[in-house]
Amino acid sequence: MPELRKDPIVGRWVIISTDRAKRPTDFVRENMKPKGGFCPFCYGNETKTPPEIQAYRPNTNGGPPPPRDTPGWTVRVVPNKFPALGIEGNLNRQADGMFDRMNGVGAHEVIIETPDHNASLATLPPKRIEDVLWTFRDRILDLKKDRRFKYILIFKNHGEAAGASLEHAHSQLIALPILPINVVQELEGAKQYFLYKERCVFCDIIRQEMDNGSRVVAENENFVTLAPYAPRFPFETWILPKQHESAFENSSSHMFENLARALKHLLGRADRVLDNPPYNLVIHSSPVQEPTNDHYHWHIEFMPKLTKTAGFEWGTGFYINPTPPEEAAKFLREANVEELAAVPVGS
Amino acid sequence: MPELRKDPIVGRWVIISTDRAKRPTDFVRENMKPKGGFCPFCYGNETKTPPEIQAYRPNTNGGPPPPRDTPGWTVRVVPNKFPALGIEGNLNRQADGMFDRMNGVGAHEVIIETPDHNASLATLPPKRIEDVLWTFRDRILDLKKDRRFKYILIFKNHGEAAGASLEHAHSQLIALPILPINVVQELEGAKQYFLYKERCVFCDIIRQEMDNGSRVVAENENFVTLAPYAPRFPFETWILPKQHESAFENSSSHMFENLARALKHLLGRADRVLDNPPYNLVIHSSPVQEPTNDHYHWHIEFMPKLTKTAGFEWGTGFYINPTPPEEAAKFLREANVEELAAVPVGS
Repeated sequence: MPELRKDPIVGRWVIISTDRAKRPTDFVRENMKPKGGFCPFCYGNETKTPPEIQAYRPNTNGGPPPPRDTPGWTVRVVPNKFPALGIEGNLNRQADGMFDRMNGVGAHEVIIETPDHNASLATLPPKRIEDVLWTFRDRILDLKKDRRFKYILIFKNHGEAAGASLEHAHSQLIALPILPINVVQELEGAKQYFLYKERCVFCDIIRQEMDNGSRVVAENENFVTLAPYAPRFPFETWILPKQHESAFENSSSHMFENLARALKHLLGRADRVLDNPPYNLVIHSSPVQEPTNDHYHWHIEFMPKLTKTAGFEWGTGFYINPTPPEEAAKFLREANVEELAAVPVGS
Repeated sequence: MPELRKDPIVGRWVIISTDRAKRPTDFVRENMKPKGGFCPFCYGNETKTPPEIQAYRPNTNGGPPPPRDTPGWTVRVVPNKFPALGIEGNLNRQADGMFDRMNGVGAHEVIIETPDHNASLATLPPKRIEDVLWTFRDRILDLKKDRRFKYILIFKNHGEAAGASLEHAHSQLIALPILPINVVQELEGAKQYFLYKERCVFCDIIRQEMDNGSRVVAENENFVTLAPYAPRFPFETWILPKQHESAFENSSSHMFENLARALKHLLGRADRVLDNPPYNLVIHSSPVQEPTNDHYHWHIEFMPKLTKTAGFEWGTGFYINPTPPEEAAKFLREANVEELAAVPVGS
């Protein structure tokens, strides 16, 4: 069973893998598996992953549903073969001298976004991206019934430099019995602002940014895509719902349709401007047991991995960003993505 | 002039380089300059860096001091040729709508640790490492006279994967008009603990870890080297002064002698166990205008860069560490560094 341990100074919880502990020689500086090798996420290899938790399969016109763990799916969810957390057991939170620990109870799932090994989230049709978003929602609604889980983190590592170990398009989900420290800080910051202003800080940002326009990349009926005022990374970009909503899973079906379009546009623009960059994408949402509140506003953060100045920023929380967000937004806004039928800013 | 901008949600300040803004095509995925190429940090190339701020030169036996910006030095400090901050001007802190900004006023210096292109901090004689530590102190004492500066960050990126752009051994110093967010959190966490316990949390950790022993790597008269209880990274290791001291620059000369030994031992052990890993090293110290207090305890954090799961952790503050600190400490403790004359644990 992995272990969750708390840093006694800043209160940061960390997962320590105790089962399959990495010894020094395990840190070979390996590359991602070469193109063309065996891929457990492709059709026909369904038995090479743990049994599927859920899959979308096209309508069988009244015929019997196809068997599980066989081809024919469009989106497929499986447990991570090397999970960071174990699904069974009690938390057993306890002291360890002056320290705090608990069992590493949680879920770690993989969302295979397409059966097509050569597709990416950017190249999928909007309807297929929407299916991926619906899958995220399905999994959140299922897992939040388990009251042990305080937070569900959905993220995507795309490309080797962004931490992906398999190139076949996929996202990951981690259900946690604690709140990650950055989530705590964001919630706390948003709550402080609300206490002072009686308004959501994200709603205020959206209003100001849409008035100003210089950091807006695109918008549609429900979503605005913008470069934040103080981005940590070059070309960091957020997608926010225009109307206040605390949690991703509360979105209506119409919202998911427009989110799929916004996401496809952003990823397409980034691929165009930055030449298919590696990236991380994280859904920031309210804790699952507090899905409706006035102060927090869910959103997606997109972080292309363009620079190598990594470890130092980790250690200090101090970031040097060589690209002003106004310039990043301009490049992304002006990217030639006509075929994506982007809605022009201000229309 | 670069700009400092504050994220309105979590309060994180970020430097935005507005002068030499990077356009999309500037993010070529380049490698570090090849071995054997021109190196501005080697003897004879002193005019290829900005004029030196300070240098240690061996005793000239009563002769005239050697001219600046010529060979003969053992440690040399120069302004960073591509500084993240500008040294001149006022902060001019102001609102930008609902946002906060100020001018990017600060210092960005490079400490060239040795004239020997093939040496590393791990391979320098202890006396030379001590000179590097004295240089850090000299620069802090000089820069803290400038009341615009709230924090002085000293760090080292070693190896390309850790963000180093030149292979010649060097550290960096950044003097900031704000506190980095992780520093604020550490100070705040330490203060909360002190308010509750009336003891320094680091002093308590040191006492418990030395009693327990399982996470201790080494110790000497003044310093203990240990793997923290909840490390973010495999083989993350801290060096802490055994006696409470808030700020690095307050250390006595005897302390620096023992810190040089502790640092050499740790880097030597890591090179042995992890095969010369890339790493980041950061000095965590009190804000320069508050150098003596009861709650904060300066220390060095050493973070080898062994895994690639980078961007996701950046975005969330959530870390999965595949190596328990007890195992990391054991490997480092048992590394064969006899020639370093390490003091055995508990002696």
